[in-house]
Amino acid sequence: MRILGIDPGSSVTGYGVVERRDGRLLHVAHGTVRMPPQLSLPQRLDHLYRTVSDVLAGHTPDSVAVETVFVAASPRSALVLGQARGAILAALAAGGLPVNEYAPTRIKRAVTGNGRASKEQVQAMVKRLLALDRVPASDAADALAAAIAHANASRIEALAPALAGSRQPRRRSRSAAFSVRRPH
Amino acid sequence: MRILGIDPGSSVTGYGVVERRDGRLLHVAHGTVRMPPQLSLPQRLDHLYRTVSDVLAGHTPDSVAVETVFVAASPRSALVLGQARGAILAALAAGGLPVNEYAPTRIKRAVTGNGRASKEQVQAMVKRLLALDRVPASDAADALAAAIAHANASRIEALAPALAGSRQPRRRSRSAAFSVRRPH
Repeated sequence: MRILGIDPGSSVTGYGVVERRDGRLLHVAHGTVRMPPQLSLPQRLDHLYRTVSDVLAGHTPDSVAVETVFVAASPRSALVLGQARGAILAALAAGGLPVNEYAPTRIKRAVTGNGRASKEQVQAMVKRLLALDRVPASDAADALAAAIAHANASRIEALAPALAGSRQPRRRSRSAAFSVRRPH
Repeated sequence: MRILGIDPGSSVTGYGVVERRDGRLLHVAHGTVRMPPQLSLPQRLDHLYRTVSDVLAGHTPDSVAVETVFVAASPRSALVLGQARGAILAALAAGGLPVNEYAPTRIKRAVTGNGRASKEQVQAMVKRLLALDRVPASDAADALAAAIAHANASRIEALAPALAGSRQPRRRSRSAAFSVRRPH
């Protein structure tokens, strides 16, 4: 199963692709999309839409995990971020993929065990979990972390019926590495 | 010159198409796009993106006027409106059209002479200016009003060099009425 993670941002959007094969998570790709400042807002959103479409076409993921917005900002910044999210989500839906949304705290907990981990901690754990040569840029690391969170959630969901059938109590792991908590 | 006006909304987006021919404004089409509530957010945004693309393909406007956001709302509602705007603006840019933004007060002034006109006044004036048989829905009326505002602004801009050339002071028309007639 191949998962695309996306961390939408007002000026920079991160993306990351991971693959789960034989119970292991493998890194496929990651990067950032910058909205070229010399373009008009509609052109920047079109650029974002097209880049997301290209990533879908190039990496053919089976599902998508997107970081939800932690709304604490001003209406103005929420509007700007919303515009970027609108272009991204429309492009994802055009690709026919179901979009799974994860809160930032849940993504952080999935990779570090701590929902309030710093950006640096997320970057370091993503590097380690995916055996990368170098620390990915923060936006790309967040996107890879979203993909990892979804990979773990899906794995646990797939196991759940078997566990229920054998009448074993469902275990909730508290450890960060790969084994993550299930969505409530 | 054919102009598409758009009034983006969180749940309903209005659009309207007018054409300026021989100094008169003609009504071409108008309508509303509802985001189907049974769909997921990404699917609703995809629906909005596609509908805007279809309107562009069907009516082949030369330019577009979009109502800007009057940000007074909460961050949450600004985010939701931003998402709709993101999908709409990306679709407009994909069509290769320059997007002109107009503040709500300017649009109201363009059709009623009063920047603080009520929704009903805008609807009534749009019906009269475009010689419509019935009052258009509020979102569609706002979209038609945006198109009319842009048509007037473009006309004044087009006249400016001639006026400057003849050393006449440039007049700014305060009157809303622009003689318009409906086709047939």
